[in-house]
Amino acid sequence: MRHLLGIGDLSRDQIERLLDRADSLAQLLERENKKLPTLSGRTIVSLFFENSTRTSSSFDLAAKRLSADTVSIRAQGSSVTKGESLRDTVQTLSAYGPAAIVVRSPFVGAPGMVTRWTDAAVINAGDGKHEHPTQALLDAYTLRNRLGSLDGKNVWIIGDVLHSRVARSNILALTKLGARVTVCGPPTLIPREIEALGCSVSYTLEGSNEADVLYVLRMQNERMAAGDNFIPSVGEYAKRFQINGERLGARQLLMHPGPVNRGVELSPDVVDAPQSLITEQVAAGVVVRMAVFYELLAGRGEPEGGQKRATAVAPMPDGATR
Amino acid sequence: MRHLLGIGDLSRDQIERLLDRADSLAQLLERENKKLPTLSGRTIVSLFFENSTRTSSSFDLAAKRLSADTVSIRAQGSSVTKGESLRDTVQTLSAYGPAAIVVRSPFVGAPGMVTRWTDAAVINAGDGKHEHPTQALLDAYTLRNRLGSLDGKNVWIIGDVLHSRVARSNILALTKLGARVTVCGPPTLIPREIEALGCSVSYTLEGSNEADVLYVLRMQNERMAAGDNFIPSVGEYAKRFQINGERLGARQLLMHPGPVNRGVELSPDVVDAPQSLITEQVAAGVVVRMAVFYELLAGRGEPEGGQKRATAVAPMPDGATR
Amino acid sequence: MRHLLGIGDLSRDQIERLLDRADSLAQLLERENKKLPTLSGRTIVSLFFENSTRTSSSFDLAAKRLSADTVSIRAQGSSVTKGESLRDTVQTLSAYGPAAIVVRSPFVGAPGMVTRWTDAAVINAGDGKHEHPTQALLDAYTLRNRLGSLDGKNVWIIGDVLHSRVARSNILALTKLGARVTVCGPPTLIPREIEALGCSVSYTLEGSNEADVLYVLRMQNERMAAGDNFIPSVGEYAKRFQINGERLGARQLLMHPGPVNRGVELSPDVVDAPQSLITEQVAAGVVVRMAVFYELLAGRGEPEGGQKRATAVAPMPDGATR
Repeated sequence: MRHLLGIGDLSRDQIERLLDRADSLAQLLERENKKLPTLSGRTIVSLFFENSTRTSSSFDLAAKRLSADTVSIRAQGSSVTKGESLRDTVQTLSAYGPAAIVVRSPFVGAPGMVTRWTDAAVINAGDGKHEHPTQALLDAYTLRNRLGSLDGKNVWIIGDVLHSRVARSNILALTKLGARVTVCGPPTLIPREIEALGCSVSYTLEGSNEADVLYVLRMQNERMAAGDNFIPSVGEYAKRFQINGERLGARQLLMHPGPVNRGVELSPDVVDAPQSLITEQVAAGVVVRMAVFYELLAGRGEPEGGQKRATAVAPMPDGATR
Repeated sequence: MRHLLGIGDLSRDQIERLLDRADSLAQLLERENKKLPTLSGRTIVSLFFENSTRTSSSFDLAAKRLSADTVSIRAQGSSVTKGESLRDTVQTLSAYGPAAIVVRSPFVGAPGMVTRWTDAAVINAGDGKHEHPTQALLDAYTLRNRLGSLDGKNVWIIGDVLHSRVARSNILALTKLGARVTVCGPPTLIPREIEALGCSVSYTLEGSNEADVLYVLRMQNERMAAGDNFIPSVGEYAKRFQINGERLGARQLLMHPGPVNRGVELSPDVVDAPQSLITEQVAAGVVVRMAVFYELLAGRGEPEGGQKRATAVAPMPDGATR
Repeated sequence: MRHLLGIGDLSRDQIERLLDRADSLAQLLERENKKLPTLSGRTIVSLFFENSTRTSSSFDLAAKRLSADTVSIRAQGSSVTKGESLRDTVQTLSAYGPAAIVVRSPFVGAPGMVTRWTDAAVINAGDGKHEHPTQALLDAYTLRNRLGSLDGKNVWIIGDVLHSRVARSNILALTKLGARVTVCGPPTLIPREIEALGCSVSYTLEGSNEADVLYVLRMQNERMAAGDNFIPSVGEYAKRFQINGERLGARQLLMHPGPVNRGVELSPDVVDAPQSLITEQVAAGVVVRMAVFYELLAGRGEPEGGQKRATAVAPMPDGATR
């Protein structure tokens, strides 16, 4: 493994190796001093073209616990989100010789493009509607901790599957690990031919009581705005698809990538129910991201200068002046 | 001591123990290498729902000098400032297993609420008009360094006592340490029944020449806006309550929590006068906050995972998407 | 050397000493672990009153690679950019006892003023149109790596010399190191009497084919706005002064401080041409800034408390409340 661009690129063995690494790191983290010297003197750059507090702070803390130096570049809504500028930004940052670049972008495939312009390992922290591989890994890690193995387990992914990179990465990861996955939501929010990913489709919650796990997606705010045609109304959506105390079985596990819209996709009571793994998911985020850094970087030499060829430098996120 | 929510919760012994700890840390800081390994591998989260550069950088530097990893979340004017969301944010951050969470909030009592949702030590960095305990501790530390003991000392706190958490925490700290405190300002800016805290009240500066210390509060900008009814005008206020070269005795000490409005509550000349302890107060901020971290955290095991119960995760400050 | 305010203050020997130090640090950085313990336990404050991502992240990474703790204060467009407030901000930050303060300001001479209010070493990271000494040092370092010595080398600096602190610092550094410098651009963008700095002037590119190095300046966006009278139009400017494949000789070196406006001062093809040193310049930024910290701070004791005299504290950048 040289980069982590998507779950689609990984074999079952590679996924399990990452989860095993997370397991062994979790044991080390049980002591009070959570710092490991693994990446001391190496630099992790994070380049976020979309707003994020959770994912970025989780990556940041993972890097720090491995003793890496971190450089954070934020560029929301700036011109660097487009083609040439992304390249120039990456080439500039690569000149610092980073061991890894963590990229979040609204554009599908942006992290893959970044690999062409740097010798650093590239980690996809979410690209458009495509993939969010570390989220799927932390979800798989959380489930495996509870269930032992995912083989033959029945997982329902419920909500706005159409716009969700989390759904996509999770379908890929869970099926590779042997689970049976059903995606569920109104037809307007289920992509056509999603079955090609190896999952089943249901347009109602009927049958979800057979599931071992209900994985509920966040309803994006723009979906709930007046004039959006994907759902008739928030109330109507909740009536048909909200997971509440009646719909959540006593032995079913509940997951959600956060942040929750209480009263929309989940009723307030189930969020804190004993079946909920939501906080465990967040905690898993740090150790799984440590595992990703570890697998990509530990024992791998870092190129000096970091650039692939003598290349150029152009606009930085905020139109910085020299 | 498990948390630091307010001076109101502390005994004289506990305050003195914190100041003694600051003393011993200050000696260690006299060497060129100011770094102590005390909190290596532990994480301090700061969660600021109000603008702050001084207080947050002081806490941040204190944490770094104790070798902690720091995670900073800023959320000014966001929806997380209210009830449920604060809880969700805290539960999310707690999943990182922080040793301490430093909270600043415009809402009275927010830090106390935070203690219910985390196993981390909670430190109040200012909650509405209620308390700002580390400010009062650094002020007491600065004064003790100058005066030896505060027993029987005469301290006047002058200005907008009504809206000031600094005033409130200082009245509590100084009286517990044996000082006699008088609050002074126009009747509109002195809360009713403030005497219940153990201080005297004066509506003029008459008698302030007897004080050992004049502690002058910052006049908030909104007080000075046209249409605010608390003071007739800035000029009128300054005429009656500004501390200037004539009103500051040669042997009186001058304190101010910063930032100063020069020409309003203080005349420009006294700010830099030899009686001024203002820069010493800032310097004391780092060592006193180190002492707070030390007393709350050193030698105290950190719970794994950090959460009190399986709980939920909801909106993060900036409406981050996953 | 106590501060780094401008190349104008440095002798050739001092410049060469800094470049030699960068050379020896670059060798240490060739190993995978790029961390040096040099400034462990010391604090570097950066105080940026202008937008910057590149320069600030480069200084930040340089400080971290020397194991310093860093505190960053950003204050764009705030009231602290003026006289008294700058002083108050500096005095406040000095109370933290920093080893160095890195200052970027839109005002010429601001870093020199800062030296009066702190015992920390002060480093100019750009002051108005005056100087940007670390940029010139990293440029000289990059060139020296390629050319061995700059003695007798012919360097053309092309573009908006009038508004460029980069041009000014480079003219000074390159001539001190023995190069012959010609500045080139339309008469509206060449300051009068610039020859006093020891360079020649050309209002056309004629003769630039004799140069060893073409150093092309960034055309600031405001120059390209309609109604700006410094250039007739972007197209007209590019026609006369853009460096493109035809105008760049096969053996000439191309430099640019970044970010490039592709298609304006440089044609897109030359940016990535083999003659381009642009990425090397960025990489040099970290090691040269490490060298500056090293020369100013290593082996030099740090004053306790950091303040020159008992002084005052006033508004912080963002109008922070206490």
